[in-house]
Amino acid sequence: MADKVREVTDEFGRKAEFREGLEGVVAALSTISSIDGEKGILLYRGIPIEQLAEHSTFEETAYFLLYSRLPKRQELADFENKLKSRREVPPAALDLIRTFPTTANAMDLLRTTVSALGLYDSDPKNNAIEKNVERAIDLIAAFPTIVAAIQRRRSAKEFLAPRQDLNHAANFLYMVNGEAPTDYVAKVLDVALILHADHGFNASTFTSRVVISSMSDMYSAIAAAVGSLKGPLHGGANSEVMSTLQSIGSLDKVEAYVMDRLARKEKVMGFGHRVYHTYDPRARILSRYSQTLAQQTGNTKWYEMSKKIEEIMQRELADKGIYPNVDFYSATVYYYMGLDQELFTPIFAVSRIAGWTAHVIEQLQNNRLFRPRAIYSGEKNVPYVPIDKR
Amino acid sequence: MADKVREVTDEFGRKAEFREGLEGVVAALSTISSIDGEKGILLYRGIPIEQLAEHSTFEETAYFLLYSRLPKRQELADFENKLKSRREVPPAALDLIRTFPTTANAMDLLRTTVSALGLYDSDPKNNAIEKNVERAIDLIAAFPTIVAAIQRRRSAKEFLAPRQDLNHAANFLYMVNGEAPTDYVAKVLDVALILHADHGFNASTFTSRVVISSMSDMYSAIAAAVGSLKGPLHGGANSEVMSTLQSIGSLDKVEAYVMDRLARKEKVMGFGHRVYHTYDPRARILSRYSQTLAQQTGNTKWYEMSKKIEEIMQRELADKGIYPNVDFYSATVYYYMGLDQELFTPIFAVSRIAGWTAHVIEQLQNNRLFRPRAIYSGEKNVPYVPIDKR
Repeated sequence: MADKVREVTDEFGRKAEFREGLEGVVAALSTISSIDGEKGILLYRGIPIEQLAEHSTFEETAYFLLYSRLPKRQELADFENKLKSRREVPPAALDLIRTFPTTANAMDLLRTTVSALGLYDSDPKNNAIEKNVERAIDLIAAFPTIVAAIQRRRSAKEFLAPRQDLNHAANFLYMVNGEAPTDYVAKVLDVALILHADHGFNASTFTSRVVISSMSDMYSAIAAAVGSLKGPLHGGANSEVMSTLQSIGSLDKVEAYVMDRLARKEKVMGFGHRVYHTYDPRARILSRYSQTLAQQTGNTKWYEMSKKIEEIMQRELADKGIYPNVDFYSATVYYYMGLDQELFTPIFAVSRIAGWTAHVIEQLQNNRLFRPRAIYSGEKNVPYVPIDKR
Repeated sequence: MADKVREVTDEFGRKAEFREGLEGVVAALSTISSIDGEKGILLYRGIPIEQLAEHSTFEETAYFLLYSRLPKRQELADFENKLKSRREVPPAALDLIRTFPTTANAMDLLRTTVSALGLYDSDPKNNAIEKNVERAIDLIAAFPTIVAAIQRRRSAKEFLAPRQDLNHAANFLYMVNGEAPTDYVAKVLDVALILHADHGFNASTFTSRVVISSMSDMYSAIAAAVGSLKGPLHGGANSEVMSTLQSIGSLDKVEAYVMDRLARKEKVMGFGHRVYHTYDPRARILSRYSQTLAQQTGNTKWYEMSKKIEEIMQRELADKGIYPNVDFYSATVYYYMGLDQELFTPIFAVSRIAGWTAHVIEQLQNNRLFRPRAIYSGEKNVPYVPIDKR
């Protein structure tokens, strides 16, 4: 792993090690997900992501992340019913979304709504595991309803009540679009939700663990994670990928665009990953879905542009370990599903809420306050100069 | 420093170092505050906290933290006027507070209101330093207004508009109580605000830096910090100290209470600090103010109880480096000022917003995404078992 260790001298004249962005620094032990950045392997609770993408559902994966074992048939049915019965969010939360400016950023609205949900918790001081598992299920169930409401508010449409006859992914698409998706489109979203559900100590998950480590509460931790995911260096990247494709405009301009970025030593959005130095296994799966959706919709342009960017990047940079990451192909997958670009990052949250809540619960079971060290690099023993002598 | 390093074996069979809660791990360089935990010295931008507590004001300290130099006379006057002119918060934010349950936790309300402020930012994608300095001033000015409104909402009283003839501390107390404080009480709050304004990479400040490191936004970072500060292992401790004093009840029960806690190896709230292994310099200053307020109010009981707890802890544990921390004496200081216990942690936020915003701005000037490592400690290569075989 490319741990860039810097030797620094602290304010007491002692040598200290410093790794920018805490790269490679062990922040905690976890049994939730495992990333082999050299081999391109992602496991949830020990199972390779490819197996879950092929055989599981988002609901089952969420159960697995929360309870750390696969459910039996009846347990899964009960869990699915619990999720369905909790899709309705407090009317006050929906009223809140109605009062905010229609121009507001969807992630800002999601963060604020999650924060507000904490105000309606009936037993707010109870941080017992069982209680937080129930809160986790509440939030996993509520996120699609909240995100769909935010999207409809932005386009001045009435909110739609969740449907009980649809699974998690299909119901979300129904609440956004007003019509149920085809089985294939619902399946693609289901897979995308499985693939985004957890990923080690990414910045938003780490955020949620830092917040809960003060023994705060689930809503504080999750609202903070949403705020962190929003950033373009994290979840915001998938939306930036689509912006990039649109700004390039057409297949014949790809070569010049990429070569120009590389010549100026600028990043190409959707490439490279802090942990993977090989192909991101999630990108591999999403690439295939992007291709199939391109063919089905008869609009192959965006997939072909992506593929060409990947080929050029491979030709130029594969020896540096720069490969497509999950954001690169999730962008076109969501685009082909007809989803608004502003929704790409909120959909990431609709999935990652499963991982965030599992991490909050794990952190509470063996907690120590996160309180790292800053090395003071300014002047010392500065005197306070009275104002008339400044 | 007592860095508890654990040697662990990672999932690839390699040895790794692990310090729980990131204790002693350098997370970044900073010129904002410096803590010498062995000598009990706290500097803001190089100036010892004692000098600032004696000679400065909260307004000047906030300027100093944001701009990293002491203001000239005219600069300070301009800054004070800017703060005054921004005490009014968007009416929509106050309306929001009115819609929430009166029973809601004050920190949950503060977190939600800060998050909502982000929805009204007129230039939300602008993360330039100058823009974030203006947002910082907005937030420093707005926090007292928001916290006072939350407190009045909780007691079903009308909100009060800020007064322009009072300084930051006095105006806050006016908005909470409906009457201006005495000069002495205003001075005590001013000093308490100076003492709480920054403190290295405490959990909430670190939270704000982790969130902004994804290139998210100031409101996301600050709302997250508020959520983190809320926890009883962090800012929530000052309110817990007062609860402890009240549950002990009287001076004659102190000895038995403390000895019983120690015998059961339980913590005494307000003692011990991750960084200080000697007397917290802030506690020393606040202890004197607690004593004076006790005499002035003629209600010496709570100060005497605190002093006695300190004496017993000193007698029993001073050789272990367990001393009073800032929360221990801020509790009685706020109590003697007539402030509701529920306000203790929000007042911490009214001060710490100065440090949080300075850290967000510093992080953005030399940013790298915080993305530490989790060591996977679960099973690997777990097969996906079909549901009818579970």
